[in-house]
Amino acid sequence: MPELRKDPIAGRWVIISIERGKRPTDFKMRVPVKKGGFCAFCNGNEYTTPPEIIAFRIDGSKPNTPGWTLRVVSNKFPVLHIDRQINEVFDGIFSKMDGIGAHEVIIESPDHNLTLSTMPAKSVEDTLLAYYQRLSDLKKNPQLKYVLIFKNEGEAAGASLEHTHSQLIALPIVPKLVEEEVINARRYYEHKKHCIFCDIIQQETVNKIRIISENEHYISLAPFAPSSPFETWILPKNHQSSFAPDGNFSLLAQILQLTLKQIDKVLNLPPYNMMLHISPFKDELNNYYHWHIEIKPKLTKIAGFEWGSGFYINPTPPEESAKFMREVLI
Amino acid sequence: MPELRKDPIAGRWVIISIERGKRPTDFKMRVPVKKGGFCAFCNGNEYTTPPEIIAFRIDGSKPNTPGWTLRVVSNKFPVLHIDRQINEVFDGIFSKMDGIGAHEVIIESPDHNLTLSTMPAKSVEDTLLAYYQRLSDLKKNPQLKYVLIFKNEGEAAGASLEHTHSQLIALPIVPKLVEEEVINARRYYEHKKHCIFCDIIQQETVNKIRIISENEHYISLAPFAPSSPFETWILPKNHQSSFAPDGNFSLLAQILQLTLKQIDKVLNLPPYNMMLHISPFKDELNNYYHWHIEIKPKLTKIAGFEWGSGFYINPTPPEESAKFMREVLI
Repeated sequence: MPELRKDPIAGRWVIISIERGKRPTDFKMRVPVKKGGFCAFCNGNEYTTPPEIIAFRIDGSKPNTPGWTLRVVSNKFPVLHIDRQINEVFDGIFSKMDGIGAHEVIIESPDHNLTLSTMPAKSVEDTLLAYYQRLSDLKKNPQLKYVLIFKNEGEAAGASLEHTHSQLIALPIVPKLVEEEVINARRYYEHKKHCIFCDIIQQETVNKIRIISENEHYISLAPFAPSSPFETWILPKNHQSSFAPDGNFSLLAQILQLTLKQIDKVLNLPPYNMMLHISPFKDELNNYYHWHIEIKPKLTKIAGFEWGSGFYINPTPPEESAKFMREVLI
Repeated sequence: MPELRKDPIAGRWVIISIERGKRPTDFKMRVPVKKGGFCAFCNGNEYTTPPEIIAFRIDGSKPNTPGWTLRVVSNKFPVLHIDRQINEVFDGIFSKMDGIGAHEVIIESPDHNLTLSTMPAKSVEDTLLAYYQRLSDLKKNPQLKYVLIFKNEGEAAGASLEHTHSQLIALPIVPKLVEEEVINARRYYEHKKHCIFCDIIQQETVNKIRIISENEHYISLAPFAPSSPFETWILPKNHQSSFAPDGNFSLLAQILQLTLKQIDKVLNLPPYNMMLHISPFKDELNNYYHWHIEIKPKLTKIAGFEWGSGFYINPTPPEESAKFMREVLI
């Protein structure tokens, strides 16, 4: 008998195949082959990207020259532009506005052959630090209401360039999925006077079956109602509404890289999407929303049922995916 | 400058690339090749599927034998089962229920080489009639709150069998996306005392730029804020909350097949998803919700930004897609 499960934060249901869950080998991933060729994100090709917004350089080299360990640049083909005033226009029933915002690329390493799971731990830590620095800067712009940081790894997950990178899109509105999570979390808080994420962490820690890993400050787990097989979340154990790992970037980098190594090993380097969910800027410090990272390996197709209903069909129960992740040797 | 547009019914925003919209040839579709081989949906192979629920037969042939023009059977690997009582269970913060429901396949033609766009008009009409008959039957089951009828055409759109077919999944809960559309439509009605879909049809008919085609009873248009390029909706011109084309199945079949022929010709036989949105059974006859068909060619990838935000990036403005669709010679 399949199970219908509700995600209490996103408020959507998923159908989980319980009787015969798909095992990792059922997904038949092919190991991706890097195509190589000219790469705008490689060391030495800085002149081909828009100018650096920030870069980490240990050798004192000049901006937009080789010698960096991490660069953040504007996306050459941005989906939104930052250079105008917001201008909402109504056309009868419809409303629209100019596409104000920012679209940046975080080039996580100068080395074309590394990934977030294989690069040195320090580079993962720097990547998280760059996320933090860009968030801190962009939130000063009163036109921007939210910044979504995400990563598409692998062509099937939407990556158009194979050199390891994350992206951020800054938006003049809080996006629907985040708004829904915030509303549900706030409603829970009004009712119970607890953060729903904190309560989930507590319940899962007692229950143990969906916990994957933990360190002093962070925990990784398979969510109760995941929309994708092997979906994994990373959360700070103590309540924190906005992304501020303070002195703990290295512990966050440790659990993030471990999680990606587990995913790579269990599923044979699958394409995946990674998203950072934080509280919207306007109410950044609050008791009800808890930042977290969501990682969704791209193993299933979104088709008519999902498009028409918002339901997802997940062939692998999270209790099984968590077990595979826990037991794989890294 | 890109544009942010809000869909007033779904309540979500999309980013539309206005300055340089992608033209049909930019999507580089490959003409799909049918692989052939044994097919459970072909004439003569009835013994390989679960038994018929309904079938259309003009020659008086017996159930589950050749001679049919359309068959509806249970899905051999159903995502939900119909054989139990609903049983909601709470586990602390989480809630789940047994996967009660139905999952059926509408085999639209016995001919392996036809599609909904190339089959005789009568077969399209029969397909719509089968949708209607199955909805009429399933709504008698008080455990079922909604039935989503959908079609995945092409492997990239999620079709696992290439023989032309639609599917239906009957659910014990109204799915989130439908509930949201219903809530937004009801809110609009409370405010304006009009159906929002009727008002959109009226505004679009005056405006003309997003209208694709119409006949006596139906209209096809590109929605103002489509999540996919070349997304097309078909709606009855007069208000109708539940799917009941009455004597008008042939006119609906005509505009549906014309739309699919336009999509096939403009985009070179793209994969697509098609969904039928109707009012939930519990309040089927109402003044605020208007059934419609949504067709989404599968031309873009859903990646981290979409997963994390619920925003969609659409590289083709609907005004342009409607123009291509209107002007193609069928």
